[in-house]
Amino acid sequence: MATGGGTGEGRTRADRARRVANVLRAQVLRGAFPKGVLPDERALVAEFATSRNTVREALGLLRDEGLVARRRGVGTVVVGRTYRHPLGELSGLAEVLGRHGTVVNEVREARSVRPPMTVARRLGLAEGSPAVYLERLRRVDGAPLSLDCTYLIPEVGGPLLARGREALERQDVFDLIETAAGEPLGRAEISAQAVVADPATCAVLALPEGAAVLAVERLTRLADGRPADLEFIHLRGDRLTLHATLDRVRGGN
Amino acid sequence: MATGGGTGEGRTRADRARRVANVLRAQVLRGAFPKGVLPDERALVAEFATSRNTVREALGLLRDEGLVARRRGVGTVVVGRTYRHPLGELSGLAEVLGRHGTVVNEVREARSVRPPMTVARRLGLAEGSPAVYLERLRRVDGAPLSLDCTYLIPEVGGPLLARGREALERQDVFDLIETAAGEPLGRAEISAQAVVADPATCAVLALPEGAAVLAVERLTRLADGRPADLEFIHLRGDRLTLHATLDRVRGGN
Repeated sequence: MATGGGTGEGRTRADRARRVANVLRAQVLRGAFPKGVLPDERALVAEFATSRNTVREALGLLRDEGLVARRRGVGTVVVGRTYRHPLGELSGLAEVLGRHGTVVNEVREARSVRPPMTVARRLGLAEGSPAVYLERLRRVDGAPLSLDCTYLIPEVGGPLLARGREALERQDVFDLIETAAGEPLGRAEISAQAVVADPATCAVLALPEGAAVLAVERLTRLADGRPADLEFIHLRGDRLTLHATLDRVRGGN
Repeated sequence: MATGGGTGEGRTRADRARRVANVLRAQVLRGAFPKGVLPDERALVAEFATSRNTVREALGLLRDEGLVARRRGVGTVVVGRTYRHPLGELSGLAEVLGRHGTVVNEVREARSVRPPMTVARRLGLAEGSPAVYLERLRRVDGAPLSLDCTYLIPEVGGPLLARGREALERQDVFDLIETAAGEPLGRAEISAQAVVADPATCAVLALPEGAAVLAVERLTRLADGRPADLEFIHLRGDRLTLHATLDRVRGGN
């Protein structure tokens, strides 16, 4: 067994700092620090069996990611709050976060449009068919969490527009669709990717320029398999993590 | 129905460009463009019913994300290749990508260490117990895809070290663990988040500074529920998307 650094000696201090930051980042996101205060530098030096400079560099990385901040007289504290979005089943944001915060949607656009051809195709719409475009900035407890751009088929989007802005501000779209349709939605195909947000998206989400967001694309289907809506969602990387439990052998097959 | 822009009029050109980029980004990631060449500006202007300046700005956003490049005499082309990682079941990278590319792992560290306390706790190790630390840069068809930092319990990590570097370079860790244990792994809990990579990680992954990565934490358990390894994985945002199919009502409950 090698002696020395608890996270491996590393090749350079940057390597060692990265390893310490990996572990601390996961703890921040799990809400593992009581009252959101990280252990002091001396405790971290002991826990990671590394130098004070390495610990400082690791904390600097987490500060650059917007996850922690230095507060005078208190130490390093967790900034804001990160929400966990389970990927096990299809749920709207308010359904997931309902117990943890109040979701309010700022409706930026809600109207009938002629969708781009590729969107029309994915929604199963005939060429020239209209769609409903809905763009919402979603806040949890007042702070921006995501920017959702949604194209809906007219049968689903029309009744949504008719409900008016207030319903769109207070309710998940899934909820509104199911109320209108009188039946639950079916499945959704989602994909998620990390991107650096463009300046306009950063401004809307109150992020510093150059911040990372999760770019999620979600195609949701009605119970009969027909596409209902196609969404492009940008989620603040510092406020949301996706979670899933995966089985090595699915269903015992 | 409103007349005008296929993606909604938008408040500003930046808004309109962002909407066009949303749709094009999803197409790039799905591999929807024949031979990786995007339609020319004129075609995009028609498809999105928008101005040439908006199309140019949208293409500029995708260039900034490292997804496309302008090539003289050809137009806008998709850069590199994006791999899809399904989230439906627990699979190693080589298992997922085996048909699409050759995965080679560059072993940066492989040795016994004293793990940080929080890692020991999550792995169910007694205080002072060693763990095996394994750090690998993973390449697909030669190009870096991810940096995987793994802490393994000694019963699992020991036999892995004994296999030597060559096995670690060519095989998924899951595969090696199962061969050693003689039984399949159980479940894994994963979380994924978008972060801006630190400069050291960017250098290792051959990314420009300030690039976005998916930071994945994965705790994998043996069939009997005992933790086997805890991984911190940084995946290039421009090369990997996570995919899942979600049911609105799971298993009909």
